Amino acid sequence: MASSLIAIVAGVGPGTGASVARKFSKTYPVVLLARKPENYEGLAKEINSHGGKAIGISTDVSDVTSLKNAVDTIKKEFGNHVGAAAAIFNASGPFMRKPFLEIPPEVFQSSLAVSATGGVLFSQSFLPLLLNGVKLNSDHPPSLIFTGATASVKSNAQMASFSTGKWALRALSQSLAKEFGPQGVHVAHAIIDGVIDIPRTKEWLKDMPPEAKLSADGIANDYWWLHTQPKTNFTWEIDLRPAVEKW
Amino acid sequence: MASSLIAIVAGVGPGTGASVARKFSKTYPVVLLARKPENYEGLAKEINSHGGKAIGISTDVSDVTSLKNAVDTIKKEFGNHVGAAAAIFNASGPFMRKPFLEIPPEVFQSSLAVSATGGVLFSQSFLPLLLNGVKLNSDHPPSLIFTGATASVKSNAQMASFSTGKWALRALSQSLAKEFGPQGVHVAHAIIDGVIDIPRTKEWLKDMPPEAKLSADGIANDYWWLHTQPKTNFTWEIDLRPAVEKW
Amino acid sequence: MASSLIAIVAGVGPGTGASVARKFSKTYPVVLLARKPENYEGLAKEINSHGGKAIGISTDVSDVTSLKNAVDTIKKEFGNHVGAAAAIFNASGPFMRKPFLEIPPEVFQSSLAVSATGGVLFSQSFLPLLLNGVKLNSDHPPSLIFTGATASVKSNAQMASFSTGKWALRALSQSLAKEFGPQGVHVAHAIIDGVIDIPRTKEWLKDMPPEAKLSADGIANDYWWLHTQPKTNFTWEIDLRPAVEKW
Amino acid sequence: MASSLIAIVAGVGPGTGASVARKFSKTYPVVLLARKPENYEGLAKEINSHGGKAIGISTDVSDVTSLKNAVDTIKKEFGNHVGAAAAIFNASGPFMRKPFLEIPPEVFQSSLAVSATGGVLFSQSFLPLLLNGVKLNSDHPPSLIFTGATASVKSNAQMASFSTGKWALRALSQSLAKEFGPQGVHVAHAIIDGVIDIPRTKEWLKDMPPEAKLSADGIANDYWWLHTQPKTNFTWEIDLRPAVEKW
Repeated sequence: MASSLIAIVAGVGPGTGASVARKFSKTYPVVLLARKPENYEGLAKEINSHGGKAIGISTDVSDVTSLKNAVDTIKKEFGNHVGAAAAIFNASGPFMRKPFLEIPPEVFQSSLAVSATGGVLFSQSFLPLLLNGVKLNSDHPPSLIFTGATASVKSNAQMASFSTGKWALRALSQSLAKEFGPQGVHVAHAIIDGVIDIPRTKEWLKDMPPEAKLSADGIANDYWWLHTQPKTNFTWEIDLRPAVEKW
Repeated sequence: MASSLIAIVAGVGPGTGASVARKFSKTYPVVLLARKPENYEGLAKEINSHGGKAIGISTDVSDVTSLKNAVDTIKKEFGNHVGAAAAIFNASGPFMRKPFLEIPPEVFQSSLAVSATGGVLFSQSFLPLLLNGVKLNSDHPPSLIFTGATASVKSNAQMASFSTGKWALRALSQSLAKEFGPQGVHVAHAIIDGVIDIPRTKEWLKDMPPEAKLSADGIANDYWWLHTQPKTNFTWEIDLRPAVEKW
Repeated sequence: MASSLIAIVAGVGPGTGASVARKFSKTYPVVLLARKPENYEGLAKEINSHGGKAIGISTDVSDVTSLKNAVDTIKKEFGNHVGAAAAIFNASGPFMRKPFLEIPPEVFQSSLAVSATGGVLFSQSFLPLLLNGVKLNSDHPPSLIFTGATASVKSNAQMASFSTGKWALRALSQSLAKEFGPQGVHVAHAIIDGVIDIPRTKEWLKDMPPEAKLSADGIANDYWWLHTQPKTNFTWEIDLRPAVEKW
Repeated sequence: MASSLIAIVAGVGPGTGASVARKFSKTYPVVLLARKPENYEGLAKEINSHGGKAIGISTDVSDVTSLKNAVDTIKKEFGNHVGAAAAIFNASGPFMRKPFLEIPPEVFQSSLAVSATGGVLFSQSFLPLLLNGVKLNSDHPPSLIFTGATASVKSNAQMASFSTGKWALRALSQSLAKEFGPQGVHVAHAIIDGVIDIPRTKEWLKDMPPEAKLSADGIANDYWWLHTQPKTNFTWEIDLRPAVEKW
């Protein structure tokens, strides 16, 4: 029944999400969730043309109905009894690094809608499929992995529109780890502490050696490692940073 | 100009909020914010009849317009140049302690709307008044104090609809402490770790000695202590628990 | 029987320890512990000439025998049934801020001998007196307070010879808080996060305003506040830093 | 030059240390450090007879001279320019879970001598070899890994003789991660949060399913995973616990 186990990745831009999707697509059909088709179309095509299977679904993780549609689409594609081997929440809302009093309230609300509420809705949508994965005896414990950041554990001046959502997401992941670990689902949280080497950051840290940035493929490897931990040895949280990072 | 310095307390039920309001009313006129008049009317009457000054304003801290109205009402009452000596955010949203998959998404949304967004909107509304308090040379550094809970630092199974908001609020308070401390505003966060001795908890911990519960007046004393710290010695965070508490 | 309640302060140099001793001497006879008489003689004289009572005892907190002698001396002076209202551990070992491989092992050993072992021995010596204080119905719960630092919660490069002892001391204080809280002793830990304004630091932060340094008297006030918390409302940990501190 | 890269494991009893040594022996000659030969002889024989290479050296990690002898022995065996690909500190001192006032001071001292001072001396002894490993271009960044416990982050009542050393060790690992990461050495700390399934714990948790205990081989796999992380993606800390663990 391995064919009915899938991996779901929310938040697939050109960085971590895409690397994670590629990595997990070597073993599972992957479902790519992003608000805009242009964020998953190229990646789905790439995976499908390299012998994997991927479908993309336009989804707003902060919207209950949108997520219900995503689950329906998945069931149409993979069957009503589909199980998830992995569900990875890599989405982040918009935020502003500015003096607190200059940030419009809507920025906080949008950021919390994705990072906090989005994390909740994503988990409520896909935990039933992960629990199906447990019943289907997946080779590795079904895994629910959340992408965090430095701002998940440290809340700096002018960063509150980012950190509030990220702390909330970390709280969610810890609570779910305690509730669903005993049910066989591995819930984990990764603190990405540094700049990820993606096209958008090409011009950053130019005076530093190339290894001053995190590798997105390296993050994907680490998520895969978390996924393959047996249920005797679950890690809830890892931090990841370049060797040269100041911290 | 001391007469133009006020204290604002959001979330005044029969517990911590009321004790805090009573304590600060010995020095400042207090503004009581609660959604329903029945939550502040008795307290306002009590304070006014004991030689203090209190006004109550029906306010939903999760609503920008409602908070704007509150600020307008305050300015009508205390003048456009009113300063705040203290603003205390003691509100909490509704939550459910239940298996995660049985909690309606609206519960998470309401909880985050008060604890996270509410904390943000309250701060954006009253930090300008606290900064006015700095200019007015208040005797003690104007203080913005947030009430947290055990769930602000520990996210237990089935508690995510409470902890997500509380972690977000703690992140907010830490970021604001770093940004507004240098501007003279003392931002603090209190982790209330235990059952508070209020009418609603009368039947709780009945097999324990009376001192197994936190005193709400004691919490108010500690908030006052935080308020009186000089700007050479600011505390961002305190925890508070009964001596007999298991932790 | 209030006369048989004393306060003990270990680590009385010209900074925090002296301020704490002065503050507590307004209510209790104080015992000043330091390795060298020159560290307590002037202070004892000052307190005694201002209407308080102080005795100094040359004590090495890392040495069991030396602490036994101190306890004996105290009992000779204040009676066998003397109780302690407060015992404050403010001692720190020597350390070096240098590349790890250039620090002689003895530096680590001396630092741990004072901060870690010293904290243990001090606590084992004076907890019996604090428990006596509980029996003697001291007005405020007898308090065992430890002075920590930024390095108690953050271990920076080249700081390990300081942080190892400070983290150990914090662990000690947390364990003791949990064990002795229910027995009526208030155990607390203070994270001093910044430069204290004492003669030795006169030349530091000269380009900053005077309030960029912590006031030692302010710290003493905060320790006194911790001491006066009732047993319904114990704080285990506070942080203290100047408003302008970067953190 | 791969032949001149070795792995060193301190604290090899029948549990984690042995599993880690077996795992790393598949790639590197391993040096087994333990106070008593009976703790490494069987393991060394087993590794040598299975195609690996292992030598044991009787070593007291709390003793500078003993560690110097160990380094000398290693250089005699593997050459003066030997590099270390990994050094794993898995030693723990003795401790007592008892009321604080009933624990002899020597227990604290012995515990700190191994966990805190031992960690320091081990690191000072083998970091030069790990830095050699960097120069020798080891396939994976040379790794210094410390074994922690629940008591590394939580200090319960009656556990201070264990937690003081473990918190100190965690502080050490964090400081070294920051100092030696930029020099190419990967310093990591593992929080083992649960009972490890070893002969000594056979009778523990008998009413629980077998997966209620951590697998020692699983821990070894995770240490190997840490070791293989590239220098763009270093993890400082992981926690490890059985899926069913209450936490």
